Amino acid sequence: MYFEKVAIVGVGLIGGSFSLALKQNKLCRQVVGAGRSAANLDEARARGAIDAIEREPGAAARGADLVLVAAPVAQFEKIFLAIAPQLKPDCLVMDAGSTKRDVVEAARRALGAKLAQFVPSHPIAGAEKSGAAAASAALFRGKRVVLTPLAENAPAMLEKAAAVWGACGARVSRMAPEEHDAVFAAVSHLPHLLAYALVNDIASRPEAAQLFGYAAGGFRDFTRIASSHPEMWRDICTANRDRLLQELARFGAQLEKIGKILRDADAKALEKLFTDARAARERWLNGEYE
Amino acid sequence: MYFEKVAIVGVGLIGGSFSLALKQNKLCRQVVGAGRSAANLDEARARGAIDAIEREPGAAARGADLVLVAAPVAQFEKIFLAIAPQLKPDCLVMDAGSTKRDVVEAARRALGAKLAQFVPSHPIAGAEKSGAAAASAALFRGKRVVLTPLAENAPAMLEKAAAVWGACGARVSRMAPEEHDAVFAAVSHLPHLLAYALVNDIASRPEAAQLFGYAAGGFRDFTRIASSHPEMWRDICTANRDRLLQELARFGAQLEKIGKILRDADAKALEKLFTDARAARERWLNGEYE
Repeated sequence: MYFEKVAIVGVGLIGGSFSLALKQNKLCRQVVGAGRSAANLDEARARGAIDAIEREPGAAARGADLVLVAAPVAQFEKIFLAIAPQLKPDCLVMDAGSTKRDVVEAARRALGAKLAQFVPSHPIAGAEKSGAAAASAALFRGKRVVLTPLAENAPAMLEKAAAVWGACGARVSRMAPEEHDAVFAAVSHLPHLLAYALVNDIASRPEAAQLFGYAAGGFRDFTRIASSHPEMWRDICTANRDRLLQELARFGAQLEKIGKILRDADAKALEKLFTDARAARERWLNGEYE
Repeated sequence: MYFEKVAIVGVGLIGGSFSLALKQNKLCRQVVGAGRSAANLDEARARGAIDAIEREPGAAARGADLVLVAAPVAQFEKIFLAIAPQLKPDCLVMDAGSTKRDVVEAARRALGAKLAQFVPSHPIAGAEKSGAAAASAALFRGKRVVLTPLAENAPAMLEKAAAVWGACGARVSRMAPEEHDAVFAAVSHLPHLLAYALVNDIASRPEAAQLFGYAAGGFRDFTRIASSHPEMWRDICTANRDRLLQELARFGAQLEKIGKILRDADAKALEKLFTDARAARERWLNGEYE
């Protein structure tokens, strides 16, 4: 497996790290980056994540053997439309979007006859740091990558996609797009929304300075994901909003239940809830759900 | 400032760390520990956090120059009743409870004529690890300790309390108990409740194993505080439940607002919410609220 030319559309944390991992494993000759921020692309080139810069995604994809689309998901359809006419027949196209139903729909609308070349993929390797400056060749090591294959994908194309992520050190698994979006609404999108909501609520109070002044380590870790990229998360939450609304309603009902426990001063129920949660988290940390 | 005999009632993360910090700074001759778990007290002695073990808080406090009560807050009144008859007139008594109104009320009921010796204090140095095994002399370095002084406290007693925590490396400030409980309901107690609630909700589903299987770094940090000590947090949430219920209602209203933004697919409002939260958290991390 060797790629003469790789194109990365959106050379941020994920796109930049993917490129650095390919280079470290000597899996490509040249990486061309495209994106909206010239400063970020310059940074990516300075760090050796990309070798050349193109203004347009189409120009970057021209003649490429591998294209990774790693922009906020609302831009995908436009990017797919731009790259479609440029794709060589054997070029593997992947994305790094955190939602999959919308990405697959955008690909179906925009990629036309090239659809079979597109293997939807989601590397579970986010961080609150964004941009090429935060990229690292080691980002995907030991992390999961979920592929949500299309019926149209040739088995060889799928194998190649799994092999590339595997070469970056990731553990690759497969899921249907619907299942993917349901799972990540619960374990990723909702927690992000809750963290943003809490920070925002505290920041909006007259006594915000005092409150933040006494916030400590627990608050810092709980809200780390509230430092995530706002546009990226706007797009994720918008794309997956039906599932996210379900999770939000479910969590609201859970809070109602806990509110009743508090009003009843039911110490026993409260302790059971905390004990069960701690035990479940302990099992998770011990790798019982791997 | 030197203490011949120090008594620690509840030699867990906080009590054990306080003792280790005093010893490291050569501020005491002997530390006697009391608590409910013989195994934990043995561990504390093996680690050098305490020199001797007493079964009863009263026996530990007898002849002590400094007593720290660092048990879950629901036990305080019983402990205060036990130590009150044993307290020398110049013995400083402090606690490490995460709530203050209930602790002050328990002290008023139980300490009688010794009340003036009690300086309520809250070291903001919790962690999801508990017990003497997790104790460290460095735990309080750079951390805040909030004193909620009583009108009865002699200035010299207050100064001594501030000096001891200062010697442990903490930044000491003062607050009224009511203000304390309002502040920590927002920045500590509510986040703990939310983290416990989320883990519990996920763990209770038929597909829990799959969900945990795809939970990653964001989930890990968001839920770290759901590994906190269940009994300790049962007591905190019960003691501060009126304030916590206010925060829960407020947060529920915030989630309603966000739910409407999602239903309306109002991408602009969503991005503003995320951008504002990230900016506020950035200011906080930069120390603008210290």
